[in-house]
Amino acid sequence: DPQIAKEVAKLLEMKAQLGGDEGKQKFVLKTPKGTRDYSPKQMAIRERVFNAIITCFKRHGAEVIDTPVFELKETLTGKYGEDSKLIYDLKDQGGELLSLRYDLTVPFARYLAMNKITNIKRYHIAKVYRRDNPAMTRGRYREFYQCDFDIAGQFDPMIPDAECLKIVHEILSDLQLGDFLIKARLGGFLCAMVNDRRILDGMFAVCGVPDSKFRTICSSVDKLDKMLWEEVRSEMVGEKGLSPEAADRIGEYVQLHGGLDLIERLLQDPKLSQNKLAKEGLGDMKLLFEYLTLFGITGQISFDLSLARGLDYYTGAIFEAVLLQQENDHAEEPVSVGSVAGGGRYDGLVGMFDPKGRKVPCVGVSIGIERIFSILEQRVEASEEKIRTTETQVLVASAQKKLLEERLKLVSELWDAGIKAEVLYKKNPKLLNQLQYCEDTGIPLVAIVGEQELKDGVVKLRVVATREEVSVRRESLVEEIRMRTSQP
Amino acid sequence: DPQIAKEVAKLLEMKAQLGGDEGKQKFVLKTPKGTRDYSPKQMAIRERVFNAIITCFKRHGAEVIDTPVFELKETLTGKYGEDSKLIYDLKDQGGELLSLRYDLTVPFARYLAMNKITNIKRYHIAKVYRRDNPAMTRGRYREFYQCDFDIAGQFDPMIPDAECLKIVHEILSDLQLGDFLIKARLGGFLCAMVNDRRILDGMFAVCGVPDSKFRTICSSVDKLDKMLWEEVRSEMVGEKGLSPEAADRIGEYVQLHGGLDLIERLLQDPKLSQNKLAKEGLGDMKLLFEYLTLFGITGQISFDLSLARGLDYYTGAIFEAVLLQQENDHAEEPVSVGSVAGGGRYDGLVGMFDPKGRKVPCVGVSIGIERIFSILEQRVEASEEKIRTTETQVLVASAQKKLLEERLKLVSELWDAGIKAEVLYKKNPKLLNQLQYCEDTGIPLVAIVGEQELKDGVVKLRVVATREEVSVRRESLVEEIRMRTSQP
Repeated sequence: DPQIAKEVAKLLEMKAQLGGDEGKQKFVLKTPKGTRDYSPKQMAIRERVFNAIITCFKRHGAEVIDTPVFELKETLTGKYGEDSKLIYDLKDQGGELLSLRYDLTVPFARYLAMNKITNIKRYHIAKVYRRDNPAMTRGRYREFYQCDFDIAGQFDPMIPDAECLKIVHEILSDLQLGDFLIKARLGGFLCAMVNDRRILDGMFAVCGVPDSKFRTICSSVDKLDKMLWEEVRSEMVGEKGLSPEAADRIGEYVQLHGGLDLIERLLQDPKLSQNKLAKEGLGDMKLLFEYLTLFGITGQISFDLSLARGLDYYTGAIFEAVLLQQENDHAEEPVSVGSVAGGGRYDGLVGMFDPKGRKVPCVGVSIGIERIFSILEQRVEASEEKIRTTETQVLVASAQKKLLEERLKLVSELWDAGIKAEVLYKKNPKLLNQLQYCEDTGIPLVAIVGEQELKDGVVKLRVVATREEVSVRRESLVEEIRMRTSQP
Repeated sequence: DPQIAKEVAKLLEMKAQLGGDEGKQKFVLKTPKGTRDYSPKQMAIRERVFNAIITCFKRHGAEVIDTPVFELKETLTGKYGEDSKLIYDLKDQGGELLSLRYDLTVPFARYLAMNKITNIKRYHIAKVYRRDNPAMTRGRYREFYQCDFDIAGQFDPMIPDAECLKIVHEILSDLQLGDFLIKARLGGFLCAMVNDRRILDGMFAVCGVPDSKFRTICSSVDKLDKMLWEEVRSEMVGEKGLSPEAADRIGEYVQLHGGLDLIERLLQDPKLSQNKLAKEGLGDMKLLFEYLTLFGITGQISFDLSLARGLDYYTGAIFEAVLLQQENDHAEEPVSVGSVAGGGRYDGLVGMFDPKGRKVPCVGVSIGIERIFSILEQRVEASEEKIRTTETQVLVASAQKKLLEERLKLVSELWDAGIKAEVLYKKNPKLLNQLQYCEDTGIPLVAIVGEQELKDGVVKLRVVATREEVSVRRESLVEEIRMRTSQP
């Protein structure tokens, strides 16, 4: 399919070079694979989602930054493990080797190290790029938005981590996406080992996994959200050569999920409690749940030993929010439609950029709006809710011919007074067409100028919904429009 | 310099592969050439500029769209003439050949053709990419924002064109950038010939320029904003082989600038008035100035025969806004700091994408915020105005130790009530440090919890600026904060 597209493009180019078809070159009229345009209606929905998210980030006192869409290639090297193959590189056209950003976390760490910032709470909303297999109906794209909130700095344990979860909770509640479940997990002792040797000695050690297999076994555990334990176990034992006993010991742990009670129980677990790092992790998890209780959000948060996020740079707590939807009317378990937010602690990443390796502890969360956006879009379609794509308050119209100049003068006056106004770009539009335009686009008011009105120094103001018409003195028009559209 | 950077990158990669310097890899800590990060303070200024621009676009009833950051390479091919060499290509990693967008106009035309839209008024604010020589202190970058407003559709002449100029006028006035001058010009008969053969027969024909030299002579004219006429003339005659007589005839025209009077004079010009296309153009220019008079903005708009914008796709009116600044206290002519907005009519571009070549007439304007942004940034620096980078209304603090839980409970209550609130991430922060944090970041209120307040069911609310303290009942706190920060 991409091969075909390439061949077609080549043939078209050859054809174009042959010429002849003057000004009517054939193009493949599409956006690149895995990307899309946003129509005005889609933008209206997207802006609602962004507003909810930005309002929440600002409520938590975050500043905002921005970074370039591409970074030096070496900035991204060695940060994403196996996923590095999904990075988009730019062509070498002389000069630096560049890549499109893969996420907002690595550019953030680069920004902190470059500017020697050791303390910041910021958000960043921007597009990131991954050469993944797109599944666009389910909201998986190659170009997609991430909405990141991160707290960098040396603080007392788990307070910023708890705030990140509170933020996810607030945003998803605010968007009224129905039930959602946040998996919370001290990732340190399950998956973040690649970047932190102290944590490698934790949970896998206790189960008897040899050091050399930590990473590959972790990536098996990561599949538990899509595969049954039996399948994952046979991958561990069959493909990855783990002993059946070690696999079974892991199996006992990764099927557990719960809350404070489970954490307490594991702190008493004869094996785990003997491991220094597991104990540290469980202690922090307990603290996290205490703070989440104060925030009143433990009800929807589960401590889940099977959560193992993919990215290399996590060193402590990790979290992921999964959207659940009731498939049908049966009283079945709700079905996950995928992850809509994820994040965790990455205390080592900034140090990788600092010439002296100085660390800046960080924790953050990333809201993935594409899935949220597809769901909202489907809901809007289903509800037949009419979404306005402009904010125009009034259309300046005329009932008679030869009044273009008067319409332009009036609309200009309204613009200068800050009124959102439009005028049809026709010399002599029919009144019916002007009224129809208001119906189609949701403009609530029409200001009608005519010969008589001009003589009398008034404008006829018509309310589109009720067809009510009032005569308004020209000098009071702005005030009247403001009042009627309640825009002070 | 780029060569050196590349060599350094290679050496560093080799060093990294040799290993040993565990976790302390050396990176070139920078953003790619011609790009920059935006700090929270810069973002605050940038958002002010965006707000002014978006408010104006919405006031004129525009919808908003978005397109991907990259397009199929062929979508951009043949649209930018010589500037095509500045396009960033992506590396061929299998699949489609892609390029970063060079402007927002070509993606807009592709969007219209792809979705068969013949009628839309939209804005689009996004980054575009050009491998140009950056001059960052003067606001010229390789990654920069364009803020585009375009009107597509078959309308009566010059009404949408006039609205584009009105928009530029409103935005630049709103940003209070001091004096600015919009050059308005029916580009058709000076520079847009590359894309429209009918217009080629206009002005150059009258001066005796041979058909084969139209394009190259136009690009000489384009330099008149930076070079004297004498220099441009000698380029035309010396380098480009134009006859001295033809050059002199061009010289008579391109040094003219004025308003309606000049247009009237040229309509009577014995040579120009004989040329059908020149006459058509001058007629439209006259109409444009009549509409600009109705809008009350002719005072700052000059009809300038030397304006010749570079892009290939213009077919009719073109315009450009140049920012002028008074260099010093002498009564000298103000100096141009460069173009801050430009645009024009491009009636043929959408047809280039349509399989049947169906045309959609378009006119639009692009606001370049980078120069505006540099100027505002310098002004803010000079004025020592303190810019807040967060909107936090209240810091939840405590005067005694062991009150972390109470602080977290209160801040959570405030978040849930929609109050923008922060708390320090320390178990036992000193009150002085908490107050200092408010001073540093501009937080106006502090809500202080203490043992006594908890017993009494109150919170001490402190106004940072005046040091005034009042005791507020816990259930009235939200209302009190809202009132004092006037956020209803």
